[in-house]
Amino acid sequence: MFGWKKWGILALVVGASMLTAVKFSTGSPCPTPVSSARYTADGKLMLPQGYRSWAFIGSTVTPNGLNNGKAGFPEFHNVYIERVNLGAYRKTGVFPEGTVIVKELALVRNATHPDGSTDEASGRGFFEGELNGLDVTVKDSKKYSETNNWGFFNFGHHALPYAESAKEASAAECAGCHQAGAATTDMTWVQFYPNLRTKN
Amino acid sequence: MFGWKKWGILALVVGASMLTAVKFSTGSPCPTPVSSARYTADGKLMLPQGYRSWAFIGSTVTPNGLNNGKAGFPEFHNVYIERVNLGAYRKTGVFPEGTVIVKELALVRNATHPDGSTDEASGRGFFEGELNGLDVTVKDSKKYSETNNWGFFNFGHHALPYAESAKEASAAECAGCHQAGAATTDMTWVQFYPNLRTKN
Repeated sequence: MFGWKKWGILALVVGASMLTAVKFSTGSPCPTPVSSARYTADGKLMLPQGYRSWAFIGSTVTPNGLNNGKAGFPEFHNVYIERVNLGAYRKTGVFPEGTVIVKELALVRNATHPDGSTDEASGRGFFEGELNGLDVTVKDSKKYSETNNWGFFNFGHHALPYAESAKEASAAECAGCHQAGAATTDMTWVQFYPNLRTKN
Repeated sequence: MFGWKKWGILALVVGASMLTAVKFSTGSPCPTPVSSARYTADGKLMLPQGYRSWAFIGSTVTPNGLNNGKAGFPEFHNVYIERVNLGAYRKTGVFPEGTVIVKELALVRNATHPDGSTDEASGRGFFEGELNGLDVTVKDSKKYSETNNWGFFNFGHHALPYAESAKEASAAECAGCHQAGAATTDMTWVQFYPNLRTKN
């Protein structure tokens, strides 16, 4: 009889532990960290992981052919944000502290016309070729207070693989343009990203 | 004593059930259905939900200004696939049965030049404006065997909201062009979507 009592108590304790575990796991089935920004010991931002599975918010293309061969970014810009922070932005209109936004570049494919466009079954236009670079911005009001709370990082403007870490870019390289043109929308070109403006 | 035995057995049963539940939930912490395709009673495809949180695979733009004002799709095409099926494709080079691919259209913003481009801080190019339409394709070798195993659906070519359901488009409307130009890559323009070709 003592055996049953012992096993009963043990089973109750194990069951209670499991109940707690199940409660927490069902409360948030796919928890996402508020920020994925990770830094090396010497303060460089580490290359974000898995960003192509984050939420896409919009794409732009500024080809060399339309910029006298001197486009700052002659590729498509595909822009991603972590889902948890996109949800917060849609609710509040503010990017939460820790937000990471990634801009991956993709070469314009088969530039056959002088403007860089090409002809495909769907018409003449611009089509994505190979991936060609990565820029990242992180919202952190303590680290980047001098550049409107956002730090900017370049992980290479070339084919894969990108750099494993990057130091903060100077204001002249990145933040300056965002401060001049997007200061009123939290340093982000919200007008170009329709998926920021929808409700889901 | 009988009380302990009864409670002990009950606790063991509950504990075992929880163990089973935990085993399944930790085995796949964020389960995704293989296919999100849902149909109405009369066979129409229902508007996919949450696709802007699926994996983005690439964008193209074929503006009216480059197509004599008659582009079939004068907007950006932002293309999404469910993450589980993207992972399978990257591993096998084949889209699994049930794969759903969504193409959402976004108007070209502020067409100030004849080609539809505009000038922004990052240069002259094409930028996304408002969302403007949705096309969906579903791989189902039983339902769509006559069009290389894919069915095509149009949920509207206009601003939000889109139609709640859509009947299969005729081959002349959609599948024909994919059969003519993308039959060797499983009806999908893989060459335009760099995120299909990367390994992560």
